[in-house]
Amino acid sequence: MAQETAAAISIGPRIRKSPFYEATRRYGCKAFTTYNHMYLPVYFESPEADYRRLIEAVTLWDVGVQRQVEITGPDAARFTQFLTPRNLSSCAVGQCKYVLLTTERGGIVNDPVLLRLAEDRFWLSLSDSDVLLWARALAHALGYDVQVQEPDVSPLQVQGPRSFEVMRDLFGGWIEELRYFWFRETELDGIPLVISRTGWSAERGYEVYLRDGRHGDRLWEAIMEAGRPYDIGPAAPSTIRRIEGGLLSYGADMDLDTNPYEIGLGRLVDLEQEADFLGKDALAEIARSGPARRLVGLEIEGPRLPANEEAWPVSAGGRSVGKVTSAVHSPRLGKNIALAMLAAEAAETGSRVETETPLGRRAAELVELPFFDPKKRLPAQS
Amino acid sequence: MAQETAAAISIGPRIRKSPFYEATRRYGCKAFTTYNHMYLPVYFESPEADYRRLIEAVTLWDVGVQRQVEITGPDAARFTQFLTPRNLSSCAVGQCKYVLLTTERGGIVNDPVLLRLAEDRFWLSLSDSDVLLWARALAHALGYDVQVQEPDVSPLQVQGPRSFEVMRDLFGGWIEELRYFWFRETELDGIPLVISRTGWSAERGYEVYLRDGRHGDRLWEAIMEAGRPYDIGPAAPSTIRRIEGGLLSYGADMDLDTNPYEIGLGRLVDLEQEADFLGKDALAEIARSGPARRLVGLEIEGPRLPANEEAWPVSAGGRSVGKVTSAVHSPRLGKNIALAMLAAEAAETGSRVETETPLGRRAAELVELPFFDPKKRLPAQS
Repeated sequence: MAQETAAAISIGPRIRKSPFYEATRRYGCKAFTTYNHMYLPVYFESPEADYRRLIEAVTLWDVGVQRQVEITGPDAARFTQFLTPRNLSSCAVGQCKYVLLTTERGGIVNDPVLLRLAEDRFWLSLSDSDVLLWARALAHALGYDVQVQEPDVSPLQVQGPRSFEVMRDLFGGWIEELRYFWFRETELDGIPLVISRTGWSAERGYEVYLRDGRHGDRLWEAIMEAGRPYDIGPAAPSTIRRIEGGLLSYGADMDLDTNPYEIGLGRLVDLEQEADFLGKDALAEIARSGPARRLVGLEIEGPRLPANEEAWPVSAGGRSVGKVTSAVHSPRLGKNIALAMLAAEAAETGSRVETETPLGRRAAELVELPFFDPKKRLPAQS
Repeated sequence: MAQETAAAISIGPRIRKSPFYEATRRYGCKAFTTYNHMYLPVYFESPEADYRRLIEAVTLWDVGVQRQVEITGPDAARFTQFLTPRNLSSCAVGQCKYVLLTTERGGIVNDPVLLRLAEDRFWLSLSDSDVLLWARALAHALGYDVQVQEPDVSPLQVQGPRSFEVMRDLFGGWIEELRYFWFRETELDGIPLVISRTGWSAERGYEVYLRDGRHGDRLWEAIMEAGRPYDIGPAAPSTIRRIEGGLLSYGADMDLDTNPYEIGLGRLVDLEQEADFLGKDALAEIARSGPARRLVGLEIEGPRLPANEEAWPVSAGGRSVGKVTSAVHSPRLGKNIALAMLAAEAAETGSRVETETPLGRRAAELVELPFFDPKKRLPAQS
């Protein structure tokens, strides 16, 4: 199953390049994937070396693939609330919220970060699905008075323990006051930006939303320049770090057939709110009966495993109970760690299961998530 | 702009593998892209060698990425008609139709091949966008009594002048009676299939829709075996051949901001039909006033150009008039050929324009599409 030789990624006009694409090639990006019909860098030096820099210093990621769906107009607040089970009534202008978008059956369409730019202006900073189609269809068919479009906005992420110093040097002292999951509109040498204290690394970090695609290269170089004293380097979303931190990847750990309760995010569903939202009845029913499956952490025994290329079957007592959705070897934990979607009755912490890996069948134990939390003490092995 | 070194494609669990993926690796696929959240082979020997085999013999393509959206239920016919401006009233069971799906503004959501499997059962064999989200949102919001889902169906294409012999040897004499854009349900050694006389090559060809993903490898090898006497080889959608034939690629030559009239497919819009469909008013208005842009053929002068990685700007008399959407060098025509979306007033056949390529500014002439039609005589240079 694991591939011996790498295949190239074909570069063509059907998939878009981000405003930072030329910079990522110049900085030696070695592998790409695609995301929202755009090229997404995967690693530069190596997945492990990029991870080291992320947890020890600071890294710059081209995540222009995080397309924004912008919702504006008289019904913007009501329509945005309709798209998600999370209660947005307390979401202030300047605030971000991690939200799930659900279907009428409670299936997850996307898990964006929402930014409220004004009372009647929202961005959904997307994971990988065509929410532009989803939201436009609903707005039109249900007659909401909104505009739904994709603005010229392309995010970067500045992630790692030294990200604060880089951002402070570049943007000034107010960065210190920027609270977790808040943002501010600003500019840099005339380049219009939004800066939020968010990210997909479970390390300290920021997102820098470029609002004019013509200035991608200049913005990239300005951040690199400011980061030099802090050993900044180019990197990309780290599979190792995000699994350590229990962060989920849309398309791998959840999809249209997954509901919020299955992935342990029932806290993002407010069934008591007055407002109507898509999936309310279905989610109430699931909340009552309990989810049929649950996403859990697994420690997989034995020698180092490769990151999974597809779901690995999981069994308990010879009976199929689910699948590993994401797996990787954590260098600092010295363990194979994984996320797995298991039948609820097989999902108890401490249980033992087996999984079929490319290197053969392996025993595994169900553990609490996250695998690693920087706020707690480092585990003994690190 | 053109890349000196190839970057690898990262293989991970977020992007799905088709049932033919292992076969394509075994047969030496050298480059992939993604399409509908799945890996799509791009070439095996080289784009030019694969093209030669396609036009001279027969090729087998893994196009499992052509996901099907299946629409069933009491309102299936009415809802499917609602999704497209093409008049489906004469579409018989067993028939295929190339259709455009449009928004209420007339923008193109997708350009699938539709298959009518029963009076109340349709497949949309998709190009690259999440029509499952689009169709589910509309069906739910407008209260159509339909089920909209993605079945376990993965197409292959068997394309090239000798495809008929391969298919006849494998499936029998009825292949001879299968008319262009019709299909039949059948099986091969117990593997359930649909076979249509369709394809994306402008050569003679067939699609073989695998209806049980467990048998991908067996089906691939059976076709390879039957094709051996006819010099079959693995290949993929050919950029050279499809541009020669004037076939369009969703995401490159059209998108959500393109309407059917702009791409010369007004014949797929029936404004006179009784049935309601999404975009009827907007398309009627565009039909009245004429489209603002038109997709045209360009012959670009000078030495051989690389295939375009992104849109190339087009100007006439120093004024910007549009962009090249797809460009390639045709070996048999000995020319650089391209599709371009130009302002209507600049879109007259015979006009001359200039385009900015990675090899500098080039003169180009507007020509009729397609560039090559096998039913006509070969051009003098071939």
